[in-house]
Order: sequence, then C-alpha cells, then structure tokens
Amino acid sequence: MTNDMKKIQIFDTTLRDGEQSPGASLAPERKIIIARQLAKLGIDVLEPGFPVSSPGEFAAVQQISRELQTVEIAGFARAVKADIDAAVKATQDAAHRRLHLFISSSDIHLNHQLRKSRDEVVQIARKMVAYGKQFVDEIEFSAMDSTRSGRDFVIQLVEAVIAEGATIINLPDTLGYAMPDEVTELFQAVRKQARGGETVRYSAHNHNDLGLAVANSIAAIKGGATQIEVTVNGIGERAGNCSLEELVMAIETRKDALQAETNIQVKEIYQTSRLVSRAMNFPIAYNKPIVGRNAFQHESGIHQDGLLKNRSTYEIMDPEAMGISRNMIILGKHSGRHAIKHRLSEYSIVLTDEQLQDVYDRFKERADEQKIVTDDELIRIAGDLTQTQPDPYVLVDLQVHSGTQRSRTATVTIRENEGSEENAYIAIGAGPVEAVIHAIQQAIPVAAEFEDLELHSLSTGEDAHGEAVVSIIHEGQRFRGTSIHKDIILAAAQAYISACNQAVMTTGSSTVSGSKDQKAN
Amino acid sequence: MTNDMKKIQIFDTTLRDGEQSPGASLAPERKIIIARQLAKLGIDVLEPGFPVSSPGEFAAVQQISRELQTVEIAGFARAVKADIDAAVKATQDAAHRRLHLFISSSDIHLNHQLRKSRDEVVQIARKMVAYGKQFVDEIEFSAMDSTRSGRDFVIQLVEAVIAEGATIINLPDTLGYAMPDEVTELFQAVRKQARGGETVRYSAHNHNDLGLAVANSIAAIKGGATQIEVTVNGIGERAGNCSLEELVMAIETRKDALQAETNIQVKEIYQTSRLVSRAMNFPIAYNKPIVGRNAFQHESGIHQDGLLKNRSTYEIMDPEAMGISRNMIILGKHSGRHAIKHRLSEYSIVLTDEQLQDVYDRFKERADEQKIVTDDELIRIAGDLTQTQPDPYVLVDLQVHSGTQRSRTATVTIRENEGSEENAYIAIGAGPVEAVIHAIQQAIPVAAEFEDLELHSLSTGEDAHGEAVVSIIHEGQRFRGTSIHKDIILAAAQAYISACNQAVMTTGSSTVSGSKDQKAN
Repeated sequence: MTNDMKKIQIFDTTLRDGEQSPGASLAPERKIIIARQLAKLGIDVLEPGFPVSSPGEFAAVQQISRELQTVEIAGFARAVKADIDAAVKATQDAAHRRLHLFISSSDIHLNHQLRKSRDEVVQIARKMVAYGKQFVDEIEFSAMDSTRSGRDFVIQLVEAVIAEGATIINLPDTLGYAMPDEVTELFQAVRKQARGGETVRYSAHNHNDLGLAVANSIAAIKGGATQIEVTVNGIGERAGNCSLEELVMAIETRKDALQAETNIQVKEIYQTSRLVSRAMNFPIAYNKPIVGRNAFQHESGIHQDGLLKNRSTYEIMDPEAMGISRNMIILGKHSGRHAIKHRLSEYSIVLTDEQLQDVYDRFKERADEQKIVTDDELIRIAGDLTQTQPDPYVLVDLQVHSGTQRSRTATVTIRENEGSEENAYIAIGAGPVEAVIHAIQQAIPVAAEFEDLELHSLSTGEDAHGEAVVSIIHEGQRFRGTSIHKDIILAAAQAYISACNQAVMTTGSSTVSGSKDQKAN
Repeated sequence: MTNDMKKIQIFDTTLRDGEQSPGASLAPERKIIIARQLAKLGIDVLEPGFPVSSPGEFAAVQQISRELQTVEIAGFARAVKADIDAAVKATQDAAHRRLHLFISSSDIHLNHQLRKSRDEVVQIARKMVAYGKQFVDEIEFSAMDSTRSGRDFVIQLVEAVIAEGATIINLPDTLGYAMPDEVTELFQAVRKQARGGETVRYSAHNHNDLGLAVANSIAAIKGGATQIEVTVNGIGERAGNCSLEELVMAIETRKDALQAETNIQVKEIYQTSRLVSRAMNFPIAYNKPIVGRNAFQHESGIHQDGLLKNRSTYEIMDPEAMGISRNMIILGKHSGRHAIKHRLSEYSIVLTDEQLQDVYDRFKERADEQKIVTDDELIRIAGDLTQTQPDPYVLVDLQVHSGTQRSRTATVTIRENEGSEENAYIAIGAGPVEAVIHAIQQAIPVAAEFEDLELHSLSTGEDAHGEAVVSIIHEGQRFRGTSIHKDIILAAAQAYISACNQAVMTTGSSTVSGSKDQKAN
C-alpha cells in the first residue's frame, strides 16, 4: 500500500512570504534559527527570503544556503536580471538549490500593474528562464495570480517556459480567490494541454483569504501537484498562506483518502509553530487547527465523557504525536469532575472523593470568575487541600513602580523552602515587567534561563484579568508557568516564579540563592 | 441570472456550539446582546443554547425566543425526552421555531460512548422524532459524527427519521475529519438513496480540525445542502466550526462559481465579529480571513504599489463593504513612502516631499524598533513636523504603583489645551490598568464613555513592547486609540488619552475638566 502513496514535497516559504505578514519581519540572525528548525521538521525546500530586496536579506539567504546542506534552497526572483543575479549569487553555496522566478499572468495585473501585453509577458518569461537556466538547472516558474488568469494564456505561458527549461510549474492562487474544483481543473488542464506539460513537476501556492488554502492545496494534489508551498502557522500577506501544520496533518490523518504522504517529522510541529510565533511576534489563535491552545480542548460534558471512555470518540489526531503535551490543554467552566481528577492524576496528585469535591468547588468558583483555570492554579488549589510538596519559592510581596519616569522599579520579596527567612530584591527595567523579571532573576538561580513571556488581557473591560505565560529552560528542559490576575504585572511575576518552582522540583536543583550582595535588605 | 441562484440559509450556532469554546462561556444577559446583533446581521436560524443544560441557559433561550421574532429559533436537544421537553418549552414563544435533535451514527460512538446497537439507535431516533413532532412541525435531525459513520447506516437512520416527520437532515462532520469530495458524495448519496430523501432539506455542520470547514461547507452545497451551520469567528469546540464570515464572503465573492447567495447583511460582519470577540474573550488572529487585522494588509512593496494603481490587482473583496475601515490597516517595516503618504492623506494631512521624507525616516526608525506603527503614532510623527492641531490633552506624567498590596494606585498629570496649567489626578483600582483608567476618567470628561481595552505583549522577550488598544464611545461615535511602549501600563494610558483626544477633536466637545475636587494637587 505504501508503494502507491504519492510523495508530496513541502516547500516552506515562512521566511519569504510569511515574513511579509505585517508586523512579522525578522532580523537576519533570527532567520537562521527558524531555518534550522524547519530543516529538523523535515521540509523538502526552503525559501529563505527575497535576496535582491536588501543586503540583510541577501546575507541571510547566503548564510542559510551555506549551513543547511540537507534542504533544497529556493532563490526567489522577479523575472528581472538583477533579481536573478542576486538569487543565483545568494544561493551559490547551497548543496541543492533552485531558482524560483515569477511573473503575473492575469489581465488585471498585466493591464494595471505591469502594463505589458500578454506577448510581452511571454517574451520576458522566456528570456528570464533561459537566463537563469545558465546558472541553475532546477527552475521553478510561478504564474502569479494564475487562478484569475485566462486558462489559455496560462497554458501558453507555461509552454513557453517549459521550452526554455523550467522544471517545476507553480500555479499560485495569489489572492485566495479560487474554489477547490477550479484548482483541480486548472492543474489538470495545464498538465494535459501545455506542450511538455507531462515532463515537469507541479506546485501549488494558495492564499487563505476565503479560508480555502488547505482545501485548495488538497485540490491541487488531486489535479497532479506534487509540491505544496506553505508557511508555519499559515502566516503571510493578508490572511496568509496554506498552513504547514494543517496541510501536513490533513495528509497524515487522511492518508487513506488522499493516498499521499510527506517527509515531515510530525513530532516537531508544535515546537516549530511556537518558535515561529515567538520570533515573529505572531500570536496563535486559540482555535487555530492543530497548534491553537483550544485545538484539542473539549468543553462539552458529552465530549469529555466520551474521551475518557475512548479518545478516538472525539479525537482524530493524537496531540502528543505533534509534540503537544496534554497538560497544555486548559480547563474551563464546562469541565467536569472527571476532567479535573484526570488532569491532577497526570501530575500524580490523587484525591479522595471528598477532596475532589472540595477542589472541584473551588475550581468552579475560579472558572466562573476568570473563565479558564490554568494547571498551575488547579495544582495550587489541590495543593492547599492535600498538602503536597510545598513550593520552593513563595512570592511574599511585590512592589512595582512604573509610569513616565525613565526607569521602572520592582521589589520582590521571596520566601524560600518554607523557611522563615524572607529576602527582598530590587531591580530596574525599561518597563515594569522587565524590572520584575530582573528582580526575580536575582532571587532565584534557575530564573536566569528565561526563555519567553507572553501577556494579554483576558477580556476588554477596565477590570479585565491579565494572563501571563512564562517559559524557562533549565537543564535542557522547558518549564512553563501561567498565571491570571487582575494585576497583569503581578500575574507575570507569579507565572515566572511558578515556572521556576516546577524546574526546581523536577530537576532537584538547589534553591540556594545566587548573588546575595544584590539584596535590598 | 439571480433567479438561478440557490438561497443558502445561515444557521448560526455561536451561542451554542461556539459557546463551547474553552474560555468563551457567556453570561445569559450577554447572549441576548449577541443574538440581537445576529438578527441584524441577517442570519436565518439562531441556536441560542442548550436549554436542558442549566436554568440560565433555559432562561436565555426563552428570552431570545420571545424577543427575536424575525429569526427562526432552534431548540437543541439530545434524543432524550427531558431534553426535548426543555427545548420545546424554552422556544414556546418564538414566532418561528424548530426542534434540533441529535444522536450519534458512528460505530465508534455507538460502541464506546452510547453503548447501543445500530437498531437501538434507529429506534430511539424514531421515537424521539415522533415525540418532538407532537409539539413542533419543523424537526431538524442531526446524525452526529455522520462522516465517520457507515454510509448505509446513515441512510437507514435518515430514512427512519424522515418517516417520522423530520423535515431537515443535518449531516455533521463533528470531528473535522472529512475531505470535501467525501462530503459532496455523502449528501448526494443520502438525498438519492434514502426513501423520502428528496422531500426534505439538507444542512451541513463542519468542524475545522484540519482547516477544511469552509471547503466542506461549500462541498455540501454542491451535494445539495441549502443550510450551513456556522459560528462567528469560527469559534467552537477545539478548532471550532465553519466561520460565518469566511463562508458568507466565499459565497458572496464567488457567486459566479457557486450560483448561491445568502441573506446576510455584509456590512454588519465586522461589527458582529468584534462584538463576539469582546464578549467571549476570544481574540481574533491577525491572519484570520475577513476579520483579522492583517486580512487586508499588504506588506510587500509590489502589492502596495499595485493597490495604489488599482485595488482589484490585490483585493478580491472591499473591506469597507464589511464595515472594516481602511485606516484599521496597519503599517509596518515593509510599508513604502507611498503608503505612508496615502494613509496620512486619509487623515487630511498633506505633506511636502521634504516633510514626507522626514516622516518616512522617523516612521522607518519606529517600525524597525517595534515592527508595526499605529496610525496614532504616525499622526504624532507627522504632527511634530507639520504642527497640525495640537492634542487637547497631553500626558505629562504617570506614576503607577502595583504589586501584592490590595489596591493599586495611579497618578496621572494632564496638561489641557496647550495651557500652562497641569493637573494631577489619583485613583485606585484592582489592577494597575484599572487605576490608570479611573484616574484618566477624572481628568477627561469624555473618558467616561470607556468601551474596551485590549493589552498584549508584542514579542516574548523580557523587554518586549506592550500594545494597548482602547475604544471609547462619544456622542454615538466610536474612537480608537492605540499605543505601543515597553511599559505596558503606560501604553494603556497613552492609548486611552489618544482615543479621548480624537473624540474631542472630532466632535468639538468642551475640554473643561469634570470633578475638580478629586484632584490631587
């Protein structure tokens, strides 16, 4: 059966089209970090940027070409000599590379933007493919806006570039306009009707303006495409591109129907998604398929009950296979006693029926007030009742001064190991959160390995709760602390200390304080 | 041509399935507010809740049934007498209503959750449809998990309920598992093969676990469905449901291909999306199609250039038609001189070439540092250079104390109308943001009409910038202020004052301060 499977190449353009998301631009040194993770994820082709656009872009493409020798590198270029020269040069040292040339094929673009006739466009495309072919064997040609172009003209253009040596034909739905059936038909028509059409490979690049990017990618596979261009988290211009994780998991989950497979290491999906989200300042929607924090959440009592009987009743994918820990799944107002008990058991907290009732009552109270309850809070509630291992560090007092003055100050008082000694630490920062982080870093040795922190308000009222999520790396492991409080700065402090406590309790690190001389008292 | 158009009924389950999003639960009094907006939006059928689940739910369904006499109300019930009784009673006063009954049809659910044989399920469904039919004529029957059920059994079950009087057959893809072609085939098979199958209407209810909910809804229409169940913003269990705005705009934009139309008032889409997002504490992804803040953003210089020549080069929908103001579109690192000039011209700020260069340089500096630049900031940059109308209120000083103490305090010093007088106001709050809001409310009369505030960190570093977005309502108009600062609390204050300044400048309200006696100095 595996032999009948069609292999779908994953072409990742997170660092090119994805980076065009407003607000998501990346410093070159961050690009290499993401590129390494993409290689680990198992993508086949990487488009690291648009070399001609700036010296920084050029340098990033060059560095990635040099370092990532297991992945094919695509050099992106308009059908213009200067672009091609830059792309060829930037990808020079890649072990495997291709040139990715594009020009518009729709009349709207020809008339209003390019201001060229169809014949002129065919001539330019021909000439530029021939020019590029001198330097690089593998040429991918994209007929931009192909789904809004006259089909006959797309066929004419594709024929012309195949004659000049293009080896991969990409038919982008640049504006997310196409319906799935149209995509299938376009690929079938070009493959069959263009001279040489059966001798090249086909690729799809779908945008998500009408929410159809994944479906259109599957429709392209049905039409004969063997490469799909995607971005992590579906980022990109406007509503973004086909999301890597959705497409890959659709293929993986429905192998039976699609008879297709990819080279993606599914277990790296979540980690990749988080890295891109953090590096590009691009929060992931709660209800984002696969990687959203609700993607494997079941609120309905009916569903939760079914899941406890058999996971396949309400799950078509195993989140853990994608690197999503089940304890990231949050609990809310609709969560039942069973779900609470089950979650606590994952932390080895076993309750009597009476204790469970007490925990449940306090959980409900909290859930009614703040809608969701984090694992940390649940453990705290259960811990109060069952007197499990106490927290190594307890926040006794926090004082933060912020405003228009140049520096913000934070004073943190921490009690260690249930001792009677309380120590205070003071620090400054450019903002109140930075000041809090610096103060805690003085107080708790493991706090130094800060990884990241996210803050957001949980509703839009003046008295909204703020949620903070902090992660730290300690002895190679990641620990996440979360907290919700009406004071968003206090929530940040609590979340950070919670992550540190988990690190200390899990790894058995000493809790002896570091630099005592920085103490305030 | 319009006569050939198939009318697609929009069945909105934001308040039932959508409310099952973790963290999105709604107080009954909020449900009625959303229901009114949904009626204004032009949905055909509204499912306001699950009446049997709690007295609050029952009351909300009852109140909505009484008030919204232009919309058909669906009473949701398992195939159980008590559920049906509650649903019938709660919807008693609706002008138009239906009973919506469901039972699982997949073997996985039958074996592991219901623990019933197929024959037993058919008997229960028959009996319960007959029972409901005594009270309500219009009966919608859902074969839960139908896309993972044996097709023969779905047909057998549907036949049985049609025989008992079911008038609408819903074939849900409960777990977001189906591929579009499978959905089309399922609807076609049931319509043709079930006895009586041509005498009833068909509905689809698709989940988005693999990113295919919109495509599967379109596939259902192709298969003969004339009703689609949706939620606003695509909220719902796990990755959520088919998104109302994506489906409606796909149909609207591609009428030519789909030969279908809806009754939705497109101009209410954005307002509805915002209301649901705020009321349910459910932020909208930047790259969410239609309603995300990037959905109509073009970062690439090529795209921006094309847009200025002709909007249809890179836009398939007009955001303003959906109530999305073009000045909500944000600017970033990739925005060119033209885009800046164009945006400022929308605020009637006209610059000389030299001024534009200065503004652009300062814009780029800001964009490099914080990735995006808000309109407020851009106007401030331009205002500094062109000396346009000064801000009525200027924040001279802010001092905030927060931490573990019971109350947080904020001291705000404001200068009015370029005068020399500076007044300070002090207030307390449960969190630092609430304290800041209270202090500004004392300082600025229009500030009293606070609507909402959102905060989030723009990256995940310890020194991340925080972004604040505040809206106020003044004289019936909404004003939005935004600010970005390393001190997230200061950003909140600046955004709030910015919204107030816009309100005062636009409406010409007096800036005379209110309660002077509360001043701190």
